[in-house]
Amino acid sequence: MSTNKFVSESETDVIILGAGPSGLMTAYWMARYGIRTRIVDKCPTKVFTGHADGIRMRTLEIFDSMGIYHRVEHEAHPAVEPGFWVPGPEGNLIRQGPITPSQVFESPYHHMLLSQGRIERFVLDSIREYSDIEVERGVLAESLEYDETLGSTNEYPITVTLSHRGSDNDITIPGNLEDVEWDDLTRQRKRASGKKEIIKAKYIIGCDGAHSWTRKQLDIPFEGASTEHIWGVIDVVPISNFPDIRRLGTVTSPAGTILVIPRERKLVRFYVPVHVANDETPNGRFDRSTITPEKIKARVQAILSPYTFDFQILDWWTAYQIGQRIAPTFAKGDHAFLAGDAVHTHSPKVGLGMNVSMQDGFNIGWKVALVIAGVADPAILNTYNEERHRIAELLLEFDKLWSSYFTAETKPPEDGAPGKTENMIKVVEEFQSFADGVKAFYGDSPLVCKGINEHEGPAFAVHLVPGERVSPAKLRQPADATIRWSMGIMESDGPFRLVVLAGDIRDQEQKARVDALGSWLMGLDESKPSVLTRYTSIPGRFDSLVDTLTIHSAPWTEVEFFDFPDSLRPFDPVMGWGYEKIWCDDPCVWDRDCDGKAYERWGVDRVRGAMFILRPDQYVGWVGELEDVEGLTRYLDGFLIRKRHQVHSQ
Amino acid sequence: MSTNKFVSESETDVIILGAGPSGLMTAYWMARYGIRTRIVDKCPTKVFTGHADGIRMRTLEIFDSMGIYHRVEHEAHPAVEPGFWVPGPEGNLIRQGPITPSQVFESPYHHMLLSQGRIERFVLDSIREYSDIEVERGVLAESLEYDETLGSTNEYPITVTLSHRGSDNDITIPGNLEDVEWDDLTRQRKRASGKKEIIKAKYIIGCDGAHSWTRKQLDIPFEGASTEHIWGVIDVVPISNFPDIRRLGTVTSPAGTILVIPRERKLVRFYVPVHVANDETPNGRFDRSTITPEKIKARVQAILSPYTFDFQILDWWTAYQIGQRIAPTFAKGDHAFLAGDAVHTHSPKVGLGMNVSMQDGFNIGWKVALVIAGVADPAILNTYNEERHRIAELLLEFDKLWSSYFTAETKPPEDGAPGKTENMIKVVEEFQSFADGVKAFYGDSPLVCKGINEHEGPAFAVHLVPGERVSPAKLRQPADATIRWSMGIMESDGPFRLVVLAGDIRDQEQKARVDALGSWLMGLDESKPSVLTRYTSIPGRFDSLVDTLTIHSAPWTEVEFFDFPDSLRPFDPVMGWGYEKIWCDDPCVWDRDCDGKAYERWGVDRVRGAMFILRPDQYVGWVGELEDVEGLTRYLDGFLIRKRHQVHSQ
Repeated sequence: MSTNKFVSESETDVIILGAGPSGLMTAYWMARYGIRTRIVDKCPTKVFTGHADGIRMRTLEIFDSMGIYHRVEHEAHPAVEPGFWVPGPEGNLIRQGPITPSQVFESPYHHMLLSQGRIERFVLDSIREYSDIEVERGVLAESLEYDETLGSTNEYPITVTLSHRGSDNDITIPGNLEDVEWDDLTRQRKRASGKKEIIKAKYIIGCDGAHSWTRKQLDIPFEGASTEHIWGVIDVVPISNFPDIRRLGTVTSPAGTILVIPRERKLVRFYVPVHVANDETPNGRFDRSTITPEKIKARVQAILSPYTFDFQILDWWTAYQIGQRIAPTFAKGDHAFLAGDAVHTHSPKVGLGMNVSMQDGFNIGWKVALVIAGVADPAILNTYNEERHRIAELLLEFDKLWSSYFTAETKPPEDGAPGKTENMIKVVEEFQSFADGVKAFYGDSPLVCKGINEHEGPAFAVHLVPGERVSPAKLRQPADATIRWSMGIMESDGPFRLVVLAGDIRDQEQKARVDALGSWLMGLDESKPSVLTRYTSIPGRFDSLVDTLTIHSAPWTEVEFFDFPDSLRPFDPVMGWGYEKIWCDDPCVWDRDCDGKAYERWGVDRVRGAMFILRPDQYVGWVGELEDVEGLTRYLDGFLIRKRHQVHSQ
Repeated sequence: MSTNKFVSESETDVIILGAGPSGLMTAYWMARYGIRTRIVDKCPTKVFTGHADGIRMRTLEIFDSMGIYHRVEHEAHPAVEPGFWVPGPEGNLIRQGPITPSQVFESPYHHMLLSQGRIERFVLDSIREYSDIEVERGVLAESLEYDETLGSTNEYPITVTLSHRGSDNDITIPGNLEDVEWDDLTRQRKRASGKKEIIKAKYIIGCDGAHSWTRKQLDIPFEGASTEHIWGVIDVVPISNFPDIRRLGTVTSPAGTILVIPRERKLVRFYVPVHVANDETPNGRFDRSTITPEKIKARVQAILSPYTFDFQILDWWTAYQIGQRIAPTFAKGDHAFLAGDAVHTHSPKVGLGMNVSMQDGFNIGWKVALVIAGVADPAILNTYNEERHRIAELLLEFDKLWSSYFTAETKPPEDGAPGKTENMIKVVEEFQSFADGVKAFYGDSPLVCKGINEHEGPAFAVHLVPGERVSPAKLRQPADATIRWSMGIMESDGPFRLVVLAGDIRDQEQKARVDALGSWLMGLDESKPSVLTRYTSIPGRFDSLVDTLTIHSAPWTEVEFFDFPDSLRPFDPVMGWGYEKIWCDDPCVWDRDCDGKAYERWGVDRVRGAMFILRPDQYVGWVGELEDVEGLTRYLDGFLIRKRHQVHSQ
């Protein structure tokens, strides 16, 4: 490559440093809203093997709302019913468990395992589907200036210098790459130039991992410490007579505790303690670079004994030190944010890192995009740190408890006291909902209108809790016989979604309530402006940032699409009526999961219904009765920017 | 393109003329077994829009066994619960039905609708995955010589002259093509040359449609007749206030009867009678070329009245004449076969054409491949015509009944007699199992060892019927927690599959039975040669043409992988043990469809089990008890070629 020293200068709305799980999820939203974005990564290629692999329930729900769940489901390995192996009475190992997954009947989204590289591929493909945004790889950020005095609409507080190093010729690329991966590589190589460039941006989002350059430039501390416990990780095709070699679980023996993680393509990952700091080998005395796959293998062999263990195929390996660190804040001023490992690191053994990081990006992305697009109040950006910092704290708490068991010695329990493995099982069960990603969510803010009880919805919709996601239910689209899980219906496509649980409109009184709501939504009366037309739009992308979705509870054969008010079933002169806007909670004889119990699951009366707002990330923002158009308007007025002519007219 | 008149001459094992549904399914098997194959099609591009679109239960099962079901499921539109609209009392239309689909709790594979071009894409991708076979398009067969005196292993009875015309420049290609489609087009254009070539082949399979050139060359008649009823078909995005515009169904009004077929991408297909031959406009008087989309639209409008109907997007349209024709035989001599529309045509309104054609190809393909590979007796080729001709006869019978209702006048029923629509519903219900593709299957032959009762299995496995497919059941792989439908486990990957229903080996007597079978399968006693080692193989593809699959009935936690004999769980020094060879019929708390009722569904005792052979196309060939190794050997000896050294050793 020639080293062209020409320094170009350009502007963008957002620069994302790092194209791992959190960076890609942030970019997903930029793609959806059509925001000018640069996303760069210092590595010359994307990840193909190894790295993270655990995908939890809530992440799968998000994937379904993004339209990529089916790809994960097809390739990933299930990670349900973990088993815990402990020393038996005769020097053997015996299985405890398995533990049945929580919420089994409420969700199709169970813990799964798939290589980070595949997950990133799915998100990259989705970004490409909605935009021209492309990750630029082999690009190093060299300087960052942040003028916090700037910040009005057309100002660029961020200045970043980038160096395009391109890819080295000796990078390792695995065989059997998909065509799309080769295309990416080819384009990266064409672009690599050695050039430097200066980018002015309105926002910077640092998603650049545990050693985050951005975090350091922003002078945000990273609090906590690394231990001297050294762990090895191998992804192999195991050759072993251990019965659960392809099942999620732990194996505890006097020689130590390992974590066994079955994966796609016959791979299994092993997390293996190779050095535990103790009195004999105190801190600072162990050289991590002495670890080899052979040494890791020997440890697995010792722990799995008397079972055999070997492998011919080693797909990936690494060694790491356990450390728990967290940044005291995930934001600096109003224009710089950090996400993912850049602000929280922990042991990988809870299988949550990729999930929490993706959800960080999934949280900050739409907020920054809406502010850049001029449709939302910049004050919503404060909710990012509020919402995600607490999750990161809980993550570290869980990790501390869980990972301590892997380094603790295995002693016989004292009389009557639970043993180490019993305690491990207890921790798994206690943190299951948090690990699934469905517990302990967002607090009161302009974006979350909490009720009296933080953990409940209002009496008429007790399980629709502001700040939480909606429990999945399988629904039918009465107009066209489609059946889908609600997560796939409540798409993460950009707008705030007013979900009208219309109840049973065979009841005349109820029909009148729904019709009244429909009339108001039509916005014909200028003195009562509808939320569908009240706010600024994103021209070319979204005519309205508030969209509707109706779910009724009558049998599908007894209520027709055209029985609903016009505003709930929009019409397009080319594409016709929006049949996909009206669904029903009616059991289906040919799909057992479609049980007609969505209203029950959500705590909503089947006749009277309710309505609620889903934020773009599918968390409940507000819940009300069908008449509460004032409450609804007040909630949205709290952060959406009103159209100018409407401001004038009042 | 230059017209290079150089005539090359080459040899191949199989030449397939026509790359529609039947040709591609035939080629799928050639790809799987690694058979030298040429497949050509006269059209310059593959199908992108229109043509067939109905996919029935059995076809979906086959797709799952081929590994492409998930792609269909993701894109296709469900076609369940058809409704029948009839004239109401006040000049309006009213809905009768919907009809609940049959076998709803036994199968996840329900009638679906997706454009033929997408289905062909999935099969093409699968062919590419397993071989270098590529469809050559814009290639016309000009002459066929068939020397029926030839036919031994290295002779080529078939000589075909091909003319490579390439693609015209004015072919219509829709927007939004996938990359893979563009790649195909680009390669086709590079290859197109105007050259002629002579191909010598061992077998020819004519899959070249209703006007089959191959059929004519082989001098096989096409019996039956065309009617003068003219039909129009439009694929549109409808704009209509008819409530069931996106639901499968018929609409009968005094103006005629139409069929409504909802599809992917908001499309709906309408089958519309535009000219019914009767006394006023007798046969031979109507010019099909006068039909336009506008005329078809006007007919839909008349029939749907008082509902409105219009469209802006017309994706595809055509006009056709109904005809029912069938060839008296689907084979000529031992080396020429015909499949699909080349040997049976009918009205498209039963939505079965693509299915029966694909199943033709799915039937002939593996048989020809095994004979070419030298592993099976050429006599098995006779079963193709025996098995598929009867299905085609039934298809025409169903079609005659069904399509007559679309041209019949709608008269008020006589007192007490069922009306036209009642009769239509009766026909749908009567033919449901046949249309699903799960009834009336293959008769006794070397490949199907029927029992005493043609429609039942033996007393110990009463629902495992030789000649039929196995009812789907969801099973768990105990070693790795995977859960799959049996269709996906019983892969259409090439071998005959010995399915060992091992029963409950916690019972010691049963364990001894399974161990005895396992020892015999190991083949250590040369005087009792195992079916796993007895027959010739396909070097580089299959070490053995007989493979095992074990399904036991004990709880997964109580029986381990290593409790089964070695021969049922093969070992590979690089990839380790074949965990995917052992499954169990044990209910699963986190998947409602996995109900632990496979044995019950198959009529098999949970302790004693049974065993059976699946042919490569997943039809049951033979059923026996675990001791019946003689019966098993006799069945396979009937058509598989024994290894030479074994023949010598006895």
